[in-house]
Amino acid sequence: MSTNPVTITAPDGVPFIEITREFDAPVAAVFRAHSDPDLVKQWLGPHGYDMDIESYDVRTGGRYRYAHTDGSGGTYSFNGVFHTVRPDELIIQTFEYEGTPGVVSIETLNLEDIGGGRTRLTAHSTFPSVEARDGMVSSGMEQGVSEGYERLDGVLAGR
Amino acid sequence: MSTNPVTITAPDGVPFIEITREFDAPVAAVFRAHSDPDLVKQWLGPHGYDMDIESYDVRTGGRYRYAHTDGSGGTYSFNGVFHTVRPDELIIQTFEYEGTPGVVSIETLNLEDIGGGRTRLTAHSTFPSVEARDGMVSSGMEQGVSEGYERLDGVLAGR
Repeated sequence: MSTNPVTITAPDGVPFIEITREFDAPVAAVFRAHSDPDLVKQWLGPHGYDMDIESYDVRTGGRYRYAHTDGSGGTYSFNGVFHTVRPDELIIQTFEYEGTPGVVSIETLNLEDIGGGRTRLTAHSTFPSVEARDGMVSSGMEQGVSEGYERLDGVLAGR
Repeated sequence: MSTNPVTITAPDGVPFIEITREFDAPVAAVFRAHSDPDLVKQWLGPHGYDMDIESYDVRTGGRYRYAHTDGSGGTYSFNGVFHTVRPDELIIQTFEYEGTPGVVSIETLNLEDIGGGRTRLTAHSTFPSVEARDGMVSSGMEQGVSEGYERLDGVLAGR
């Protein structure tokens, strides 16, 4: 099965990561897959990891914390707060990998109805330094995002 | 009365604002002046504005919202969430001026004991674009920060 391509850019000299991805599903379904923890845990992150969610309260002022565990028991925990949540439209949240405590990025996720029951997702992440952004990119984040969105295609198709 | 100088830098080409300021008071007092809303409203913001606080819940996961009102009734509202609060040490929070909704920055505030009952405050703000950072600087933010810290000196001195 073919999937939609993901575009991930990390422009030189500024601490941003930009992501664009289309999905063959309506915005309401894509939003639900980002906000219902039972769905989120089915797709978020790279292949081969289990996701344990401690909390995932997708509303303005809510918090989240989860851990990815790899096949050899290594655990990677993440947490943040939701600054703004507008259902089917916008999520602005902070993001901290607990392996680098105090290095907190902020992400704006937009969902756009592009017709035909399809959705364009755009995400803009801002890191507190260019070095922190580069560290995230070199951690294999691009593969994790790409693989996660392939699984999200499956969740949206009801697989 | 002389006050300690404030250093505010907005480096070219990156979306950051850096602030450094020393205070003639211990870290616990400077932290309390940042976290007790009855104290915050005595100093935060430029001269000539009243501050009305709707909420100011300085703990990890807490939220805040307040408005500055000028002499002619103009109102400027701000809100955000606290990603991390470590008393007497660290505050990481989001910041949104509601006149530019959706443009959300993130600020890391560190307090350091420099001996003699004095404190060094350093703040690192990251904006979602260089343009948003430049807009904040051109709004008169530097004067507002400088005047606010002069009043904070007075709060710390018990005036």
